[in-house]
Amino acid sequence: MVNTFIFGHKNPDTDTIASALVMQDFQTQLGNDVQAVRLGDVSDETQYALDYFKVDAPSLLDTPLAGKEVILVDHNEFQQSADDITDATITMVVDHHRISNFETGSPLYYRAEPVGCTTTILKKMYEEHNIEIKPEIAGLMLSAIISDTLLFKSPTCTEQDIKACEALADIAKVDLNEYGLEMLKAGASVKGKSPEFLLNMDAKSFNMNDKVVRIAQVNTVDVNEVLDIQEEVKNVINKIIAEEKYDLFVFVITDILNSDSTVIALGSEQQAVEKAFNTQLENDIAVLPGVVSRKKQVVPPIDELLGK
Amino acid sequence: MVNTFIFGHKNPDTDTIASALVMQDFQTQLGNDVQAVRLGDVSDETQYALDYFKVDAPSLLDTPLAGKEVILVDHNEFQQSADDITDATITMVVDHHRISNFETGSPLYYRAEPVGCTTTILKKMYEEHNIEIKPEIAGLMLSAIISDTLLFKSPTCTEQDIKACEALADIAKVDLNEYGLEMLKAGASVKGKSPEFLLNMDAKSFNMNDKVVRIAQVNTVDVNEVLDIQEEVKNVINKIIAEEKYDLFVFVITDILNSDSTVIALGSEQQAVEKAFNTQLENDIAVLPGVVSRKKQVVPPIDELLGK
Repeated sequence: MVNTFIFGHKNPDTDTIASALVMQDFQTQLGNDVQAVRLGDVSDETQYALDYFKVDAPSLLDTPLAGKEVILVDHNEFQQSADDITDATITMVVDHHRISNFETGSPLYYRAEPVGCTTTILKKMYEEHNIEIKPEIAGLMLSAIISDTLLFKSPTCTEQDIKACEALADIAKVDLNEYGLEMLKAGASVKGKSPEFLLNMDAKSFNMNDKVVRIAQVNTVDVNEVLDIQEEVKNVINKIIAEEKYDLFVFVITDILNSDSTVIALGSEQQAVEKAFNTQLENDIAVLPGVVSRKKQVVPPIDELLGK
Repeated sequence: MVNTFIFGHKNPDTDTIASALVMQDFQTQLGNDVQAVRLGDVSDETQYALDYFKVDAPSLLDTPLAGKEVILVDHNEFQQSADDITDATITMVVDHHRISNFETGSPLYYRAEPVGCTTTILKKMYEEHNIEIKPEIAGLMLSAIISDTLLFKSPTCTEQDIKACEALADIAKVDLNEYGLEMLKAGASVKGKSPEFLLNMDAKSFNMNDKVVRIAQVNTVDVNEVLDIQEEVKNVINKIIAEEKYDLFVFVITDILNSDSTVIALGSEQQAVEKAFNTQLENDIAVLPGVVSRKKQVVPPIDELLGK
């Protein structure tokens, strides 16, 4: 059995799944015995990318991590990682998020850059090691960049992400706009999905000082598909808050065509959202114009209030 | 006034001072307005290197960090950093230690590699950016590598450190063995120094679960110079433990010629040292054959016992 697992965060998104598969290819080409795994279900958007480039999804992690070495991609915060992550030896991290609730006992290889997508960093690593990027690996990389930057519209998107994505499109032989919009749409259909499903699709927890904040996000081309079932959604959020003892739950419904978000905020720290975004919640709901990035536009202002 | 400070850890050693100056040169060549500073006195060893390559020491940090950006080199743990580090915005870290007690609110550039010295990583960054390494910068870099690896004898030393150091010696035009031994000896004279001075020369604190462990290290060519004043040293350690509420204080006296260490261990968790190194303390003292690296040979076994 392989001794080194590679995985991204819980509630895997396209960057997390793609980065694990890309890192697996990278390490394998370096002669290392590794296996990409995932910590949750593959989203419709990610499945679209995997099908398009004919790559199998990684299998679900089903082995205890005690005694194993692990490579983390696209995350570092332990509460977003495997439940028994502290039993493993983390030898490497490649990520593009803030660093928090992360520690190791020994030195490791850690590479984080403030770019829009993990695969933008991975592409550099291929180049630094003179390793060829195969078309299907390029396809996974560009899918991750399109997903994380909402086709370059997110403020997290950097010039490096755009340049990398364009170069990858040449290798994978796809039209970025056409393929990208189809992929995003494949993941943006919320119609017919249960509130429980929507609230867990892409949700992350954040420790901010002594508060625990849960921030879930969905992409859609029609916000009303969610707002039509807002009462059910709120009931489920309140149930989750009671069960998991969250101080704040923010559900970010992002309109990928208009590049703004509607949020539903509940919990004892609900007012932090009003202060953070200088807005008023009406029926626990507010529209945040221009906000599309959890990492860059939602977490920092809330952390500024609660995390100090 | 400059908006970005660069500094290494408290109780600066040669790698910390050299890395701050090298990073200042690197960022300046990239067109960024930065200033290297230090968090404590320059050691005799470091001063020897600075004098040899005719470089001025950075000035002492004397400005509050609120509202400033900082680049950390050669450390990340907040208890080893500036007292008001959490007031600053950390934009970049280049380091070769474990990651612990470190967090940021936003994504950043973080580069850690499990090599023997921070300047080995910095050298790669110069090359990746096609930036010329001037002779005096090469001199600082190789001094740091010699210092951190005890002229390649430490188990923290990697093939990368040796290769980098040899290439740097060509640029700086020095004989590594000759210069290296002179530099190490300049820093290894403990004769005539007070216990307080020796215990603070190169001391770091580590949070291990709910325990706080202080590990001080000196290099010497004659361990007896310290053991001759062991009673005074123990009295001062006990005073420091009482004042600072350390659970364990380990004073590592490293013989740089024979590549082993004698430790003096005191505090309520004193027995952790016996268990960690499978040894017996006699009069609070034990000899640890082959142990020269705090990071790789002292911290991990103690952390294994106390940190879980």
